[in-house]
Amino acid sequence: MDPVADREAVLAANTALYEALEQGDAEALGDVWLSGADADDRGGVVCVHPGWPMLRGRARVLRSYMLIMANTDYIQFFLTDVEVELVGDTALLTCTENILSSGEAEEEGELGPLVGGKVVTTNVFRRTAAGWRLWSHHGSPILTGGGDDDEVEG
Amino acid sequence: MDPVADREAVLAANTALYEALEQGDAEALGDVWLSGADADDRGGVVCVHPGWPMLRGRARVLRSYMLIMANTDYIQFFLTDVEVELVGDTALLTCTENILSSGEAEEEGELGPLVGGKVVTTNVFRRTAAGWRLWSHHGSPILTGGGDDDEVEG
Repeated sequence: MDPVADREAVLAANTALYEALEQGDAEALGDVWLSGADADDRGGVVCVHPGWPMLRGRARVLRSYMLIMANTDYIQFFLTDVEVELVGDTALLTCTENILSSGEAEEEGELGPLVGGKVVTTNVFRRTAAGWRLWSHHGSPILTGGGDDDEVEG
Repeated sequence: MDPVADREAVLAANTALYEALEQGDAEALGDVWLSGADADDRGGVVCVHPGWPMLRGRARVLRSYMLIMANTDYIQFFLTDVEVELVGDTALLTCTENILSSGEAEEEGELGPLVGGKVVTTNVFRRTAAGWRLWSHHGSPILTGGGDDDEVEG
C-alpha cells in the first residue's frame, strides 16, 4: 500500500462524487458509492444531506440523489479545507462544500437566481477490490455566525 | 477479532461518550477520543457539532466540549436508530440523538425549562491498543419536516 497513491485515489474518488452531482450523472454517482457485497442490503452505506434525516442503504441513498438532481437545474461545488486521513483500508475525508446552485426559476424553463451555501462534510471511503468507494457521507449546514471555527477558540 | 465482542466494545465506547457529556466529565470525555500517537497534532480527530463548522485536532475538539458543558446545566441523550458497521479496525456508528436539555434559566442559579432536540450523528471509531476510540463525530440538526426519512421515499 502506497500512502501517496492511496491519498490521490481517495481525492479522485471524492472529486468524482461532486462531478457526478454537478453533471447530474446518476451512473457515475452510483459508481462512487460502495456496491455489491461491499454494501449489504441491511446497512452498508449511510448518507446525511444537510438538514436531512439519516438515509441508510444504497437504494435509498441513490434515490435521494435522484430527487435532488431532478430538482436542481445547476449546481457547482468549490471544495475547500480538504483533509484526508488514511488508516488501513479506511479513509476519512473532511471538507467544506462551497455550493453555488440555481434557486427557483421565476419562469418555467428558465434558470433561477444563483444561491450560495456552505456545508461541512465528513466522507468516509473504504478500499475495495474495485478501488476506494464511499461508505458514508454526512453534510451539515453551518448555522453559527460566520462559519469561522476560530470563534470557539475562547 | 471477535465481531460480537467488537460490536459490544464499540457500543460501550459510544455510550461512554454520551455519559461523559451528561455528567460533564471532561476526563471521561478525553478518554473516549483518540489520543497520543493515534491522534496526531495535525489532524487526527475531527468533530462537527450540530450547526457548527468543522473542528480539527484533539485540543480544539475537547475545548469545544468544555465550552458546551460550561453552558449546559442539564443534558440527557436518548439514542435511537443505533447501527454499527465494523470493517477491520474501523467502526461506523450511526444514531439519532434525542436530546433533552435545559434552556436559559430565568433566574441565575435556577434550572431553565427543558428543551428537546433531534440530531442525526455519524461517529467513526478506530481500534487502538487501548480499545476503540472516537476518530470523528459529526452531528447535524434535522431541518426537513418531521424528521422522518420515509418522506423521501417518493
